[in-house]
Amino acid sequence: MAAQFMRRVVQNGAPLARFYSSEVRKVTIIPGDGIGPEISAAVQKIFAAANVPIEWESVDVTPVRGPDGRFGIPQAAIDSVNKNKVGLKGPLMTPVGKGHRSLNLALRKEFNLYANVRPCRSLEGYETLYDNVDVVTIRENTEGEYSGIEHEIVDGVVQSIKLITEEASRRVAEFAFRYTKENGRHKVTAVHKANIMRMSDGLFLHCCREAAEKFPDVKFEEKYLDTVCLNMVQDPTQYDVLVMPNLYGDILSDMCAGLVGGLGLTPSGNIGLNGALFESVHGTAPDIAGEDKANPTALLLSGVMMLRYMDLNEHAERIQQACFNTIKEPKYRTGDLGGSAKCSEFTDEICRKV
Amino acid sequence: MAAQFMRRVVQNGAPLARFYSSEVRKVTIIPGDGIGPEISAAVQKIFAAANVPIEWESVDVTPVRGPDGRFGIPQAAIDSVNKNKVGLKGPLMTPVGKGHRSLNLALRKEFNLYANVRPCRSLEGYETLYDNVDVVTIRENTEGEYSGIEHEIVDGVVQSIKLITEEASRRVAEFAFRYTKENGRHKVTAVHKANIMRMSDGLFLHCCREAAEKFPDVKFEEKYLDTVCLNMVQDPTQYDVLVMPNLYGDILSDMCAGLVGGLGLTPSGNIGLNGALFESVHGTAPDIAGEDKANPTALLLSGVMMLRYMDLNEHAERIQQACFNTIKEPKYRTGDLGGSAKCSEFTDEICRKV
Ligand SMILES: CC(C)[C@H](C(=O)O)[C@@H](O)C(=O)O
Ligand SMILES: CC(C)[C@H](C(=O)O)[C@@H](O)C(=O)O
Repeated sequence: MAAQFMRRVVQNGAPLARFYSSEVRKVTIIPGDGIGPEISAAVQKIFAAANVPIEWESVDVTPVRGPDGRFGIPQAAIDSVNKNKVGLKGPLMTPVGKGHRSLNLALRKEFNLYANVRPCRSLEGYETLYDNVDVVTIRENTEGEYSGIEHEIVDGVVQSIKLITEEASRRVAEFAFRYTKENGRHKVTAVHKANIMRMSDGLFLHCCREAAEKFPDVKFEEKYLDTVCLNMVQDPTQYDVLVMPNLYGDILSDMCAGLVGGLGLTPSGNIGLNGALFESVHGTAPDIAGEDKANPTALLLSGVMMLRYMDLNEHAERIQQACFNTIKEPKYRTGDLGGSAKCSEFTDEICRKV
Repeated sequence: MAAQFMRRVVQNGAPLARFYSSEVRKVTIIPGDGIGPEISAAVQKIFAAANVPIEWESVDVTPVRGPDGRFGIPQAAIDSVNKNKVGLKGPLMTPVGKGHRSLNLALRKEFNLYANVRPCRSLEGYETLYDNVDVVTIRENTEGEYSGIEHEIVDGVVQSIKLITEEASRRVAEFAFRYTKENGRHKVTAVHKANIMRMSDGLFLHCCREAAEKFPDVKFEEKYLDTVCLNMVQDPTQYDVLVMPNLYGDILSDMCAGLVGGLGLTPSGNIGLNGALFESVHGTAPDIAGEDKANPTALLLSGVMMLRYMDLNEHAERIQQACFNTIKEPKYRTGDLGGSAKCSEFTDEICRKV
């Protein structure tokens, strides 16, 4: 179902016949920095063990200096994603120093990946304070507080601009409803502070209401961001799919990840009109890089989301189950989950099960 | 200690000799809407039972239409707070309709109450998922995303302005360090998204760093807002005092309240240069108003914060202990805490213990 809907979304943007016709599809992989290469290798190994019919095209996004003197993504990487339409990405370091913006963000902007989808689900057998968490945050991914427009008006007085457009709001709102419907979910909560930002969040909310009217069989509710935060830590089961402006999604998705065990366990997908980029959103963990200690779960589950997006549902299901079943066994858990297994032991066990 | 520091803060702004010289001090009380009057009456009853040497001046803030046609706070209420410098406030309804801004916010702005202090502590004997929560959020209370400046640039394109000034940032940052030091706490965490809003949150962070240098014996750390949200739901004990721009404080304070049982249990103080207003931040609960079912704890504990601010530490301590000891006994708990006691039963038991 996810794939069906995802594909429809993609098709709305551009005909992808070429993409869906070949037997073995090419997928861009951006291994990333720090632990990126080893968790990417783990995912590739598991995908191979599961006979996933894709061919990886590995690209390097080490920033290169452009004609304007600023660092950016190498053209070869951009071309690869543009050609393949689907990519999987490990964590990237943000270059230090003034004028360097996050490459993670640059990629989202470059490909106009307008919806950031982060499902958070309690993992069976891996205990946290919360059972039965099963929420999906859908974050507007191109504007809002992330507009990048800021200036100093006079000395000591700065303004940052939160930009909300009808186009982007409607696009992500409709996406949220389609996602909900086609994944057999039942409710969309629009998260906002329109009591404070009456015009900007007001416009966002207006677009959500309009989208809700187009999907009468999906329940719709509106909640203040602060209320959602309060409710979420008390009883996350009251929420299902949540849609919201950029910054609110940044916050809520991390918080929800915290409920189920952290960013090492939660996948993420950035969906655009012409393609999608799936990524683990944890850091590069330079302290353990190269030591065979990293947990590849977040990237693997992002890969599973990617397979669903590509309509490879059976492979997706098989890999996901093998991953969950392996995490259930404490002896295969990596350090971040309180275990002492190596990344390779965890990976090999999934390969065995898959 | 709290009072000492609070008083010093007040004295920084204006000489309050008159205020501190009289034996019985006048305090403005704004009972508020919905359950406001009954919980205010409960607090007044408990304060009387504890022989708190204050005299209440009750004012009504039902909005009146000003010369500009907009609704605002009645002049008599403003005069009372300006004269008494200290107030306690129940929940207020926000008038419905365009052009009506929240009166809660109007009060914060009117009196330039620049720091919003919300301590969240686990209540002994009242179980939630978290033990040993003991954090204080300090929220910049006058600007940021709450500037109220918004406009439509072209049809369907809206911008809201997040305003960050050096003056307000420094003021609240220094407040946070003073608060930490003089309350025997040990660490300040500056919460920000300066990786995204480099100039605005960057300025805020810069002011926090400068304040940190003036308080070398207070630990200082900087964290991204999303990281704090994630950590907070996993292990709140890693935080102590947190300082942040307006909206982040709105979110985090509600989330922290959720960890210890909700807004019905957590106090709040708005501190300004010339006085302070203490308020419960829960809603007006119109569904149970007048039914003797409301829980007055949040307002009572806000009153306790107020007593510390006024240097009435002994009374504060006595009332707080009586309140905590009463909540420990399930038979005195009101409906929101899973009990069936009436507001009056809970109140009378505190009066007995005090
Ligand atoms: C790395 C950072 C720029 C990014 C963000 O703020 O969006 C991250 O927190 C995320 O959620 O993907
Ligand atoms: C009532 C509302 C305007 C207010 C806010 O957003 O600040 C409330 O949520 C709070 O935290 O006091």
